[in-house]
Amino acid sequence: MIVEILCIGTELLSGITLNTNAYWLCSEITNVGGVVRRVTVVRDDLSEISSAARESLARKPNILITTGGLGATYDDITFEGLAAALGKKVVLDSRAVEMLKKSYARHKLHYELTESRLKMASIPEGSTPIQNPVGSAPAVMEQADGISIFCLPGVPSEMKTIFKEHILQRIKKSVGKFVAEELNYNTRGLTEAIIAPVLIEIVKSHPKNMIYLKTHPRGYYRKKTPQIKIQMISRGDNEKEVKNRLAAISKVIEKEIVKRGGIIC
Amino acid sequence: MIVEILCIGTELLSGITLNTNAYWLCSEITNVGGVVRRVTVVRDDLSEISSAARESLARKPNILITTGGLGATYDDITFEGLAAALGKKVVLDSRAVEMLKKSYARHKLHYELTESRLKMASIPEGSTPIQNPVGSAPAVMEQADGISIFCLPGVPSEMKTIFKEHILQRIKKSVGKFVAEELNYNTRGLTEAIIAPVLIEIVKSHPKNMIYLKTHPRGYYRKKTPQIKIQMISRGDNEKEVKNRLAAISKVIEKEIVKRGGIIC
Repeated sequence: MIVEILCIGTELLSGITLNTNAYWLCSEITNVGGVVRRVTVVRDDLSEISSAARESLARKPNILITTGGLGATYDDITFEGLAAALGKKVVLDSRAVEMLKKSYARHKLHYELTESRLKMASIPEGSTPIQNPVGSAPAVMEQADGISIFCLPGVPSEMKTIFKEHILQRIKKSVGKFVAEELNYNTRGLTEAIIAPVLIEIVKSHPKNMIYLKTHPRGYYRKKTPQIKIQMISRGDNEKEVKNRLAAISKVIEKEIVKRGGIIC
Repeated sequence: MIVEILCIGTELLSGITLNTNAYWLCSEITNVGGVVRRVTVVRDDLSEISSAARESLARKPNILITTGGLGATYDDITFEGLAAALGKKVVLDSRAVEMLKKSYARHKLHYELTESRLKMASIPEGSTPIQNPVGSAPAVMEQADGISIFCLPGVPSEMKTIFKEHILQRIKKSVGKFVAEELNYNTRGLTEAIIAPVLIEIVKSHPKNMIYLKTHPRGYYRKKTPQIKIQMISRGDNEKEVKNRLAAISKVIEKEIVKRGGIIC
């Protein structure tokens, strides 16, 4: 289950907004056994959006999720960008209009459907609108060449709710049973280079994706003694196997930490 | 001055690490008048790194900055990926070896230059190593087809120091004089759709990149009254013009907020 994420928003590329959406999505997808292969972030620019979407679709992920650019303002052009990438037009969708009305009614807002508002209901031809249960702009689902495309809003609370309702189950179902166990050692006296040969041996002797070993430098203790965090994750579809694998790996690493002059704090 | 950023690290795509590096770089570059056109995030995977680098170079930014993957562990393969993208080999560089030695000496560490450590000094043929003044792994500078490529470490403190010393001045010099002024209105009673027609008129009547207008939805006050933040940024090379432009725009927007039934909080 390979997922790509395309985040759309000039604010993400000008240091205005920290991209917590991508982070949250990566975490949710990884936790159920999906693999996020790439995150791309582009500005609110039609040719950037359409070329990034086209490139992503050419890499054939199972799912492409876009975030942002679904609103009523001049720079919300995700649907136009996606439509261009698919060689389609954007059309006013009556179901999306009903969803907009429903959203306004929820907040007891009696809004006229002005041009700016109807823009939110103008979606790529043949795509399916999804009710936004938090804000107003509908999301969209689209199929292209066996790839499921979801356009989600950029507002985190809206994005998260729609992801959980419409995408998470799909990924879970496709991945099947999935278990992950994690263990971390905070060490002192070791550098990444000292423990590197140990990690590579362990990684080589396991199938890809079943284990994840990573060292994170954590500066120096009293300006002299190097500190690293060693992160160990075991993954699979059998809980006992996953746990046993983690136990075996951590035992080897524990021994090597001491042997190489380090301590676990 | 167009910049692309390529962030390398499986931890960024599995919800382990929030990509604050990209955020910080975008902010620094924008603040001096550069434009970050795209951020791409890939896993520690050779073909992903090389294809993402190749795609970025084909888009001809002025600068390509990569972050991460310069360390001593098995999954640090940025130099191999970049070399592959450039059709080059990775070679042990004697200057990079000296830089490593200098880094160790700084912390009074008497390390042997093992295979794992020498990996950090094995850089794309023809590229220039850059001393890492915080950690040990050298950074790299490379020229290709008029594009300046910088490979920076993933550890934020190391990345930031090298960026400030070696890239920031280059961007500043290329952009020349640059001023930006920002003003924000927190409003109540307006939605993005209500103010959208005002914003598009203002944006249309100014040269691109001189102003940035953006609305940020901020939920509902007492579950009923919509709240948005209106962000206005004026940019240019003349301080007086930039300020006058912002004053003129904010005056129009202020008037329209009230006219359309909103208040500034």
